[in-house]
Amino acid sequence: MRKFVVGVMGAGAEASKKELQDARRLGELIAREHWVLLSGGRNVGVMQEVSRGAKAIDGSLTIGILPHAQAKVSEFVDVAIVTDMGNARNNINVLSSDVVVACGSGGAGTVSEIALALKNGKTVVLLNASAISQQFFASLKSDQLFNVQTAEAVIQLIKEKFPASRVK
Amino acid sequence: MRKFVVGVMGAGAEASKKELQDARRLGELIAREHWVLLSGGRNVGVMQEVSRGAKAIDGSLTIGILPHAQAKVSEFVDVAIVTDMGNARNNINVLSSDVVVACGSGGAGTVSEIALALKNGKTVVLLNASAISQQFFASLKSDQLFNVQTAEAVIQLIKEKFPASRVK
Amino acid sequence: MRKFVVGVMGAGAEASKKELQDARRLGELIAREHWVLLSGGRNVGVMQEVSRGAKAIDGSLTIGILPHAQAKVSEFVDVAIVTDMGNARNNINVLSSDVVVACGSGGAGTVSEIALALKNGKTVVLLNASAISQQFFASLKSDQLFNVQTAEAVIQLIKEKFPASRVK
Amino acid sequence: MRKFVVGVMGAGAEASKKELQDARRLGELIAREHWVLLSGGRNVGVMQEVSRGAKAIDGSLTIGILPHAQAKVSEFVDVAIVTDMGNARNNINVLSSDVVVACGSGGAGTVSEIALALKNGKTVVLLNASAISQQFFASLKSDQLFNVQTAEAVIQLIKEKFPASRVK
Repeated sequence: MRKFVVGVMGAGAEASKKELQDARRLGELIAREHWVLLSGGRNVGVMQEVSRGAKAIDGSLTIGILPHAQAKVSEFVDVAIVTDMGNARNNINVLSSDVVVACGSGGAGTVSEIALALKNGKTVVLLNASAISQQFFASLKSDQLFNVQTAEAVIQLIKEKFPASRVK
Repeated sequence: MRKFVVGVMGAGAEASKKELQDARRLGELIAREHWVLLSGGRNVGVMQEVSRGAKAIDGSLTIGILPHAQAKVSEFVDVAIVTDMGNARNNINVLSSDVVVACGSGGAGTVSEIALALKNGKTVVLLNASAISQQFFASLKSDQLFNVQTAEAVIQLIKEKFPASRVK
Repeated sequence: MRKFVVGVMGAGAEASKKELQDARRLGELIAREHWVLLSGGRNVGVMQEVSRGAKAIDGSLTIGILPHAQAKVSEFVDVAIVTDMGNARNNINVLSSDVVVACGSGGAGTVSEIALALKNGKTVVLLNASAISQQFFASLKSDQLFNVQTAEAVIQLIKEKFPASRVK
Repeated sequence: MRKFVVGVMGAGAEASKKELQDARRLGELIAREHWVLLSGGRNVGVMQEVSRGAKAIDGSLTIGILPHAQAKVSEFVDVAIVTDMGNARNNINVLSSDVVVACGSGGAGTVSEIALALKNGKTVVLLNASAISQQFFASLKSDQLFNVQTAEAVIQLIKEKFPASRVK
């Protein structure tokens, strides 16, 4: 039976301290639900911390979708999918996730992932996005988009929107 | 000697009348400069009209980067590059363009292209973008981003920013 | 600590009975070693049977790299990576595998995967390949290529070539 | 009206003198027919020489499908499509070509392109392939595959198989 996959996106090396904390907590909570964590897989920023958080929980599974064969893989990634297609891998990230969470406002890479997720009809949760980000994405596709302020609220929202995710 | 390539992005079937008019005029002006026009290649919206405009000029060259083998190719595309990679081809669109122009605010697909262009260090020109789009993208990378209101202003801006484009 | 990933490639709907039997046995043996099984993810042929074999073992993990969002996913795939890039996903299959096994001679798709694996410096094991396949690929890169006749021999060979795979 | 595109594949830095000579002659003849030449776009091997041959003819058009943004582009490429997807771009090469020509036997990269072309239903012409290559590919899909010994014979064959290509 297919596992439920939560994709978490966000800034790399430029992530703020708050974003890193949120990411770590979010990874932990996702793993507690027995959901699979999917991220960009590198050993920096939100990718690194969300995977670290998940691997603190027994039985967790973390998948990293790497941009290139030379990219440094996070030590908290269980399975590395090596795409060698740079930022085009962002489309794979969102297509492979049942729900996409953007942790913080991120930079241009995260924006492309949110946009591709909306384009592909995915539910997107923005965790502590800036006011301008919230406003902008709501102007694109407001019915697939949710804004929350805590990692706990992300989990709560996913459970509500995806009742089937509970039993896996 | 490599040709100078201008990539033009924008809405598909949902494009407004104003966006379609701007696209057609822009295609014509790009072709007059002997620049290559690159677009998403399908036979709808901004892609269709910008290619139509370019093909009204003798000696023009239009390249379409198609999402899938089954996509309907614009009759105004000279060379179709068939990627079969869906929206991930948006990254190829921007990487293959010397400068990226977004004609109108577009939808989520166009947003992903603007974001990927900024991420890849490309110069991006927004033609008649909405106020919220202008504000949002300026908050991402303002030094690579320019806002204009007419197709003529797009050409003028490109000539200023890319002096080498004149001679080709 | 990163998991050891074995990619198994082979024919889809045209697979022979012998190839399907080999695939199922191979999936079972890979899972017994606690290796991750990676395949093309669809619900036909070698992909289907190798995943079925693996899921017969407790604690197994099967990853499917799907060509398109519309592709039918094998019910024996735990995590589906949806690439939406058609046969170009074959490159991801081999880049994400520590070792690549071709189960049977396969068709043109499998040939592209073997070639891409050799191009990327991967170790490739051919299980019951035809004489002409063996001869042809040996003419390309013989030092990365191994021919065996049983699923058991595949496992034995991987253990010899990848001593670190034992402890994971 | 869409232009007719001939994709020419073959070895990079390891190409033989004979392969380079064939490539140059082939590029020239393709351009004389007013067909578009598509290649891997780098400045080495068959890619370089086939583009050089084409650019010796007035009015020729050469498209290069580059694997990465950092790849060195041939000076004989008019339009560079930058994919940043490594060997996965091989699938784009064949999908974007009306007919695929392999110049010489090539290495693993060329083999993957021939296989992907056959998989995608494309007509493939092998120019001076080794006996083992001819035998192997004929065993895959003999009805789409043709073997010839001269660049002139490639052109002749394309004209026969694609009558519509004559008028463009």
